[in-house]
Amino acid sequence: MATLGVDLGGTNVRAAVVDGAGNVVAEARRPHGGGAPEQVAEVIAEVIREATEKVPLVPVYGVGVGIAAQVDDQTGVVEVAPNLGWRDVPFANVLSERLGRSVVLLNDLSAAAWGEYRVGAGAGAEALLVVFVGTGVGAAIITGGALYRGASGVAAELGHVKLVPGGRRCGCGDDGCVEAYAGGVSLKQQLREALEESRGTGLAEFVARSGRPLEGSLLEEAAAAGDPVAQVILQRAGSLLGLAVANQVTMVNPERLILGGGTLQHLPSLRRAIVTGVRAYATRSSLAHLTIADAKLGDRSGLVGAALLAA
Amino acid sequence: MATLGVDLGGTNVRAAVVDGAGNVVAEARRPHGGGAPEQVAEVIAEVIREATEKVPLVPVYGVGVGIAAQVDDQTGVVEVAPNLGWRDVPFANVLSERLGRSVVLLNDLSAAAWGEYRVGAGAGAEALLVVFVGTGVGAAIITGGALYRGASGVAAELGHVKLVPGGRRCGCGDDGCVEAYAGGVSLKQQLREALEESRGTGLAEFVARSGRPLEGSLLEEAAAAGDPVAQVILQRAGSLLGLAVANQVTMVNPERLILGGGTLQHLPSLRRAIVTGVRAYATRSSLAHLTIADAKLGDRSGLVGAALLAA
Repeated sequence: MATLGVDLGGTNVRAAVVDGAGNVVAEARRPHGGGAPEQVAEVIAEVIREATEKVPLVPVYGVGVGIAAQVDDQTGVVEVAPNLGWRDVPFANVLSERLGRSVVLLNDLSAAAWGEYRVGAGAGAEALLVVFVGTGVGAAIITGGALYRGASGVAAELGHVKLVPGGRRCGCGDDGCVEAYAGGVSLKQQLREALEESRGTGLAEFVARSGRPLEGSLLEEAAAAGDPVAQVILQRAGSLLGLAVANQVTMVNPERLILGGGTLQHLPSLRRAIVTGVRAYATRSSLAHLTIADAKLGDRSGLVGAALLAA
Repeated sequence: MATLGVDLGGTNVRAAVVDGAGNVVAEARRPHGGGAPEQVAEVIAEVIREATEKVPLVPVYGVGVGIAAQVDDQTGVVEVAPNLGWRDVPFANVLSERLGRSVVLLNDLSAAAWGEYRVGAGAGAEALLVVFVGTGVGAAIITGGALYRGASGVAAELGHVKLVPGGRRCGCGDDGCVEAYAGGVSLKQQLREALEESRGTGLAEFVARSGRPLEGSLLEEAAAAGDPVAQVILQRAGSLLGLAVANQVTMVNPERLILGGGTLQHLPSLRRAIVTGVRAYATRSSLAHLTIADAKLGDRSGLVGAALLAA
């Protein structure tokens, strides 16, 4: 039985027809341009039509939507969507009315974790901890065959665990969050700050020579080339990520830890630092039965997870 | 329906007849003297007889045992019991044979958390985080009406979350665990170290004048009297406890946080530091619906929880 998965990000909306085994049989995407919930729902409807028209013979049943936002998955209300500028929007209802069918709405990271659990690197795991490091740092816990949501649906905000009280200001407004050191946006910001503080040094030359726009992966390359400023930034990010994930392995006692996200992909030293930190700092008893795996579904995990959750 | 709850600690064994509402209707205790599992099972049988003989008209059905040990609650095997010197002992079977009835065996802190959840400060909570600071530091998570155990039953070891990589050596053999700074045994040890390093100072005089054996509560009194060494030890312990608990509130998103244990009772500044840390460092969204409460059942929580779990 095929269902629709939708990934509503900060700038793009993607839709996919996904079969019961988690295979993407058709896909479409376009920028949504932001705006009011009704406008975005209109774009989603168009992208869904585009995807479904590619496989006209496949009947499609449910619709699952992962959104880069804090969502109450029980009511379908978007509490805060920083990229879209929404607050307290009953978007599952809005979209459901536009599409004429029911919609399951959840946080995009939860959707991605669900995809990995159902048909990716987490398949069959008893208790699963999924950590994604992309523009931000996020996590999801899957236990007893379900996403762990906590009392009000805001559990597992690993990016906002604090290890440096009074440290760097985070996008969330608090200080010292892990994401303020190790998220993709923050790494780029730290690179920018380092360049401002070190005009004419090796790092500035390295970046100028690369001819590329500022991005986190330049840190990885500069550090590998021996630049001490880049090394300090990356080592700090990696140590904090490693310690934060290790402490969650201790608390969650997962059978499997899955690592994914664009930042880990482009900065492999961060991925290594997480593995090193987990092995060094999690309790021996929680490590005894733990396996660590990379996410398998790449940037389709959210699409696939949302679709499978709607099935 | 009444059941038996047993609390098997490092030196004493206690047994109680507990009714279906969690009331203790009879209780007995004695030292067990350690030794082989069969010997300890014999003492438990005696204590149970002593408790049940006080209420001869009450029929007793199940037996639940909380033990200060790492336990596989599915097989009833004690993996490590440091105080008893046991390793890989199938104690549920041993005790079950001696008593002629089935036995539910679990970690004593899990039993205490269950008691608080069922009839104490956590009654009715959707997701519950229980933190006990006694000789050590421990926690339990209750979600979906059940104790969260993780993939291999060793979840929620809050005392061995690390916030000071390479820090103080912990009883578990690792470095920098929260328990190495904030557990009751460690606080006493830090007081002893401080006295050795500061003969003739105010702290040494304070302790000598008190005429009491070394114990953590002396730290609280010395700190309150203005002693800077005691203040540093307590502030560090409190900050680390506060940060560790705050991060778990962020991750678990509990409806209620319960604080208990003898060390928090005797060192109220540590309890205050946890509350301050949680309010300062947990995410705003996880704080929005959180209430913080003190454990209600005192040192009977483990007895009551074990009995109710056996019901």
